[in-house]
This record gives sequence, structure tokens and C-alpha cells, in this order.
Amino acid sequence: MTPEEFRRAGHELVDWIADFRATLEERPVMARTAPGDVARAFPKTPPESPQPVGEIFRALDTAIVPGITHFGHPRFFGFFPTGGSLSSILGDFASTGLGALGLTWQAAPALTELEEVTTDWVRQMVGLSDAWRGVIQDTASTATLVALVCARERTSNFAVTREGLQGGGSPLVVYASGQSHSSVLKAALVAGFGRTYVREIATDASHAMHPQALDRAMREDHARGWTPCAVVATSGSTTCTAFDPIGAIADICGEHGAWLHVDAAMAGSAMVLEECRPLWAGVERADSIVLNPHKWLGAIFDCSLYLVRDPEHLVRVMSTNPAYLQPSGSSGTGAGAVTTYRDWGIALGRRFRALKLWTLIHIDGVEAIRARIRRDLDHARWLAGVVADAPGWRVVAPVPLQTVCVRHEPPGVEGEALDAHTRAWCDRVNASGIAYLTAAVLDGRWMVRVAMGAPTTERRHVEETWRAMQDAVA
Amino acid sequence: MTPEEFRRAGHELVDWIADFRATLEERPVMARTAPGDVARAFPKTPPESPQPVGEIFRALDTAIVPGITHFGHPRFFGFFPTGGSLSSILGDFASTGLGALGLTWQAAPALTELEEVTTDWVRQMVGLSDAWRGVIQDTASTATLVALVCARERTSNFAVTREGLQGGGSPLVVYASGQSHSSVLKAALVAGFGRTYVREIATDASHAMHPQALDRAMREDHARGWTPCAVVATSGSTTCTAFDPIGAIADICGEHGAWLHVDAAMAGSAMVLEECRPLWAGVERADSIVLNPHKWLGAIFDCSLYLVRDPEHLVRVMSTNPAYLQPSGSSGTGAGAVTTYRDWGIALGRRFRALKLWTLIHIDGVEAIRARIRRDLDHARWLAGVVADAPGWRVVAPVPLQTVCVRHEPPGVEGEALDAHTRAWCDRVNASGIAYLTAAVLDGRWMVRVAMGAPTTERRHVEETWRAMQDAVA
Repeated sequence: MTPEEFRRAGHELVDWIADFRATLEERPVMARTAPGDVARAFPKTPPESPQPVGEIFRALDTAIVPGITHFGHPRFFGFFPTGGSLSSILGDFASTGLGALGLTWQAAPALTELEEVTTDWVRQMVGLSDAWRGVIQDTASTATLVALVCARERTSNFAVTREGLQGGGSPLVVYASGQSHSSVLKAALVAGFGRTYVREIATDASHAMHPQALDRAMREDHARGWTPCAVVATSGSTTCTAFDPIGAIADICGEHGAWLHVDAAMAGSAMVLEECRPLWAGVERADSIVLNPHKWLGAIFDCSLYLVRDPEHLVRVMSTNPAYLQPSGSSGTGAGAVTTYRDWGIALGRRFRALKLWTLIHIDGVEAIRARIRRDLDHARWLAGVVADAPGWRVVAPVPLQTVCVRHEPPGVEGEALDAHTRAWCDRVNASGIAYLTAAVLDGRWMVRVAMGAPTTERRHVEETWRAMQDAVA
Repeated sequence: MTPEEFRRAGHELVDWIADFRATLEERPVMARTAPGDVARAFPKTPPESPQPVGEIFRALDTAIVPGITHFGHPRFFGFFPTGGSLSSILGDFASTGLGALGLTWQAAPALTELEEVTTDWVRQMVGLSDAWRGVIQDTASTATLVALVCARERTSNFAVTREGLQGGGSPLVVYASGQSHSSVLKAALVAGFGRTYVREIATDASHAMHPQALDRAMREDHARGWTPCAVVATSGSTTCTAFDPIGAIADICGEHGAWLHVDAAMAGSAMVLEECRPLWAGVERADSIVLNPHKWLGAIFDCSLYLVRDPEHLVRVMSTNPAYLQPSGSSGTGAGAVTTYRDWGIALGRRFRALKLWTLIHIDGVEAIRARIRRDLDHARWLAGVVADAPGWRVVAPVPLQTVCVRHEPPGVEGEALDAHTRAWCDRVNASGIAYLTAAVLDGRWMVRVAMGAPTTERRHVEETWRAMQDAVA
């Protein structure tokens, strides 16, 4: 494809995307394809000769768009917000068009330095001190894996350089609440800890981790010869936005020498609002934080911010050049040194992800981002209010941010019948195409999450969704 | 940013990218910025209010483009080919514009099914049997990490469900040659093996792994109570494109029950040519393969293909829903089941990466991809020929594919003086802006790699580079 052919097709694609975004509201939110439908729309074997570019637009319209549940739809209230602002999409286009690859600082100084600039912008926006340094990872799953490997190596005094976890010493233990994200367990298992050594800590009535239960677990483990290694505290749990008490947890980690990783993947974006920051009070005492600008902040996926207080340790753990044998300074904290971001994560090659964060903040401005997040908080409060007032409906968890957990409880319907009713009306809403909600289990019972935060959601979209919910139980 | 504002800025950006690509040849290949130059071009604090979109184009021109070493430049011969065809860039734009997120099949059936279609296209293109199933990862680093975790769990009979690597049993050992990529060691360390249990196997004169040395190492380890777990065989090493003998290695793995992972990250693309396939003879007997379409095949970064023979095992290991407690079929191999790609890797959320693979193959066609790779092989043969014929110059390694390893050896210059000379002339070529080459160590001595494969490299670019190399030693 020549630059001129690309120019023509690119213009057509930009128009197609602008139209797609402008008309998104009119489309069903949920994909309606049956398994295999999409695959059947494409040839089973690759074409030998060049095929018409026009077919790409046809396939987008007929096979691909109908085969997507639209996270950017104004009535998308499923999972978590991750619509992606158009301003951010522009930056990702630039990244793809430039084709820069951050293997080393020299391979793309701009990639490295704009990442330093923009991750520091986000740090300032969420009110963290300048003790933190940031790096962009693909997802929170990867960031949490990196955090647990860093914890493992700090606790074991760099066993990675010797026998790793296979030295037969005191087993290292990871702690998280039952409300922590599935990626925490997955990261611990990938890092070799084993399920026996990943302990689930009890939660209180608000679904936040019980610090006393954590302390008790660590003492028990210590008594049986195990070593507390890391705690993952959740700031805004996936199911119901519960906030673990970071200050109290930091006290306990300090006492036992355990690494404290804060998973603020979704809710971290809310910290652009000063009024939300008490929710993660104590966060300055953590060792690492993950916060996904590709969730509520408006960056297009993928853009996960991993923040650390001790980049030297991170580089010692993750470097492929044995940095532990090198003079300090080469890791980017010494005067005049450059940052080698490949040594801050798993992947060696890196996309120019800072561009999408830069264009988001540059084009929209922080004030508008704050206003959008306040708008979502307001939507959530409004919905929680009307649900609470409606006969037969109940808000089943506190609403600290933008997720409203609801249940419709018809008289006399309980237990498994209530679960079936809950899942059925949620499915009906989703199948209607009007809105998309996610059913989840809280306190052993199914309920439905209504998670605000798509870029273009207005009050009327929340109202329409509330009507669809009421229709679905009628 | 509204869809109409996006339309305007998007058109401008497409034009900017088309112009950038069309004029890339006239720019210096290597970034010429000093540390801190790029960072200083941006404000230290994020803007409160919206900033002009026009500033983005100014910053691209003045700070970002000069701050990038251009992997897509026709005279880029560094590291490995990864320029990214414009046809592929179009697909990545579509992915970003759609904002689909592959959390589950239902979240984006099109994302899952087009990934199944296109990874199968690549499988067919490189001549692998239909026993293989593919998934797109970000990079080979991640794919190799997944492979080693799968190996760990197969050898340990799912110790992950119990004590992981902390059970104090027979230590598991990973084997790779000294020419294997740094990501192999990194993956093993992240997975908890420990450096003691990552054994470097000797290579022969062609820098390929010695099967006898591997066999001996495994027997030694077995005798001292260790357990051979995984071998990473390299098909096309980073330094000099050496090919480990996969058939002989597979025999040894079979005997010791070790997992065989084939790292064909760069060279795998060459297997679109039937005449290259003898280089990885025996590959059908591997357990897993990584092959990066974002390298030589022309897909824009990131697009790494991980191929497995036993997807059920992969899902059992990587699933966050404990799939080992679920009926088979739910992992996507049973009739009517759907594939849950989140359980095929580390990250939970997934970009719609199949789009860039689809548009690459659809728009260019397989024939053109084969012709481009043949062209690069031809360039390499030509350069190797003229270098070998030039007085004072030497080709220091076999040239099975597109990388030519050269040294200029002035009479009487040896040892460290020769190394200094080698690095100096390589630096001079790079500083000239004419071409970009990578210096590396082979057999204990520095040499310079000239790696073909940027999308638009023609013979004249290789000729100009050869002249620049001769000028640099004059």
C-alpha cells in the first residue's frame, strides 16, 4: 500500500469512525451475533492476491460492528468505564502511524520522555506526591504481576539470582481480600507462589478488607514458618467499588515487612477530584499502585499506569541486562541518565502509548476530565436515589463512586429463585439492545451492577436505562 | 472532542502520516536528540483547559519525529525488521476507533473470531499443520513467559493449585542456548525458576544449540535430583539468525518429558517461503511456538502470535475461572463452544489486534508478502557477497536469512582495539543519519549486524548503506 493509497483509505476510515461514534447511540449496545457468525463472514484461507480496500468497510459494517458490545455507547453500564475519548484516539493513531518502538531510550527518546512527562501529569492530577515515578503497561494484570515479582524479590533478597522460589526456604505469602480482582490471583500464580500461599482475607460489611483479619493471618503464617510477602489492597473493587483501608493495611505491612500494592485500576481516575481522595487515604505509604487511564480517565485501551516509589528496585528485578551488576545511575535515576522503560515491565518492545495520554489531556484539559467524572458521580447518586425509592427495588451496596449495585426483589421471591429472577431481567435488558449491565455476585447473591462512565453518557441515557430495567421486571 | 472535531483532526493526521511515510527516506534514520530534549518541549504540569489541536502537529514535527529512530526507514538495518505496512496501520486505526475490548467472547465476538480466522491464516501461510491453534499476544516476551508457565505446570502436574514452586520438591530446570533472546531468561525469572535453574547450553560453530550438550545437561540434572522442565529452541537467533536443530532437540525433550518452545519471533515470517522451511524442520513436534507478525511479516507493532498444540492445557493454566473444575468444552475446543482468549495469556483486557493482521493480509495479499521477504533475502545475499569480496571486510557468520554480520578488520588491528574500531565505525554510520545498524558481540568479539526487512528497502538503499559503511572506516 503506497502513502497515497493510505491517504485515501485513511480519510475514508476517519470518516467511518466519526460517523460510527456519532451514531453509536442508535445501535444496540450488546453484540447480537451467534457463535461462529463472524468467522463465517471471512474466508478460511488467506488471499493470495491483493483484495479491494472497499471490502474492509463492508466487513466493518456487516460483520464487525454488529459483532461488538459497544463499551463506548452512552448506555453502556457494564463491567467498568472504558469508552476512550476521541482526543485519545487521535494520539493512538499518531502512535501507530509513527511506528516507534521503545526498545531502548535511543530507539525512541521521544517515546520514553513523553511517557515520563505524561505519567507525571497523571500523578499530579490524582494528587500523589513527587515520590512516585510512573510507567505505562498494557493492563493492570501485567502491572500487578510486576508488583508481585518485585515483592517476591524484595522479601527473598533477590532469590531470582539464585534458586528463585525453588530454594526450599520459608514460603512467601500473598494476601488480598475476596473482593480483589481475579488478576491478583492470576498474577500470584504466574509468579509461582501457588494457591496455598495466596490467602484470601475477610471483608467487612462494606466489602472492604478487615485489617485485623489481615494482621491475624500474617501472625498465623509467621508462626508456622511462612513469610508475609505482599498485600494487594483494592481501591475500588470491581464488584461494588469497595475501598480497603490503606492506612491500616500499610501499618500491618510495615510491621511484617510486606510489600503493599494498591489496585486502583478503575477508581484511581476518581482521584482527580479532591473530594474523592479520602477514599484512598494512606496511599502514599504503598510501594506500588496501578491506575488505568484507559478506564475512567478516558484514554483509549490499552494504557495502564504503574507507579512505584523505588524505580531502582523495579529495574534490578526486571532488567535483562543484569543491572544489579551495574553502577547505579544507569537505571535512570542518576544525574544525566536516561530511563530504560523496557526494564520496568515484562515486554521488551513498547508502543508509543504516551501519545494517547498526551492528546487526551492536551485536547480535553484536566478541568473537563474532572467535570466528566463529577457528572458520572452525579448520575450514580441520581440512580441510587430513584432505585431506593422504587417499590420492590433495592440498592444493595454503598455507592462511593459511579457503580450502583441493585436488585429487584419481588415479594416472596428469595434464594435461588431471586438469583434466577435477577439474571433473567439483566439478560432481558442486555438483549433489548437498549443498555448493557453486568450481573455479579455479592454476599452470595446475584445482583446487577450499573457502572457509569462511558464518554458521552448524559442523564437521559441513565433515565432510559432505568426505564428499561423497570420494563424488564414488569 | 466531538465526532466532527475528530473528523477534521483525523483527516489532518492521516495526511500528516501519509506525508511522513512518503518523506521518511529524506530524514536521518537515528534520533539525534540529547537526553531531556524531548521532555523540555512539553509543559511540566498538565493543562487545566483545552489546548489547540494544532499544537499536536507542531509537537509531532518539532519534538517527536526528530526524537525517534525510524524503524520504518528504508535504510533502517538495526535490531530486527518491524516497520509496519501501511495496510496494517489501517487495521490498527479501525481497532482504536472501534474501541472494542475482548474481556470475554460476548464482549466482542468479532474480536475473538477474527483473531481465530487470522491466526489460522498465518498458520497456513507458514506451512504449519492444523494441529496448531493461535492467539495474539503483545510481544514474544509475554508469549515465552506463558510458554514457560505452561511447561512449569505440565511438569509439576499443576503445582499452581497447591504450593506452586514453593513445595520444596525437585527443582524444575529451563534450558536455552547462549544465543537465545534475553526474554527467555527474563521469562524464566519472572516465572520463579531462579537463575540457578536456567541452564545455558553450548552452541556449535554456526551458533546453533548442541543437542548432545543439551542431552548431557539434562542427564546431569536428572542425576542430581533436578527435573528437566522446558527447552526454548531458537529459530533464527537475534544476533546472527542461527537455527537450533529442532528435530534433534525434540527427540531429547521427548525422552525427558520436557516442554519444547520454539522462539521464531523474527525468522518465523520467513516460513511463508517453502524454501526456508527446512530451517525449522521438526517444528511440528514442539509444544508451542512464538512468531511475531509485527516483525518481518509487516504487521504494525504489537502483534505477536503464540501457537499451541494443546489449548486445553493453556486454558487450564491461565484461566481466572478455575477451568480445571469445569467441564471440558468451555475452553473453546468442544462443539459449539466459544474461545475465551483472556484465558490464553496474562492480560485480561485485549485490543482488537486481529484487525491489523487482517488488513495487512487482505490488502497486500500473501503473494506480495512472499515477494517482499524474497527481496530481503536477496538484498542480504548481495550485501554478503560484496562485503566478502571487499579487502579488509569479512562476513563473520552464515547468512541463512536477512541478517548480515560483518566486521572491518584493518591489518594489525586486533583484540580490544578491533572492538573499539568496530563500535566506532558503527556509531559513525548511525550518527551520519544515512543508515542505522546494530553492533553486537559474537564469539566474544564485536561485529555489526545489517538486518534487512524495512517495508520499503530497495537495492539502492542497501548500496547507499554499504557506501556509508566504507566511508565510516576510511
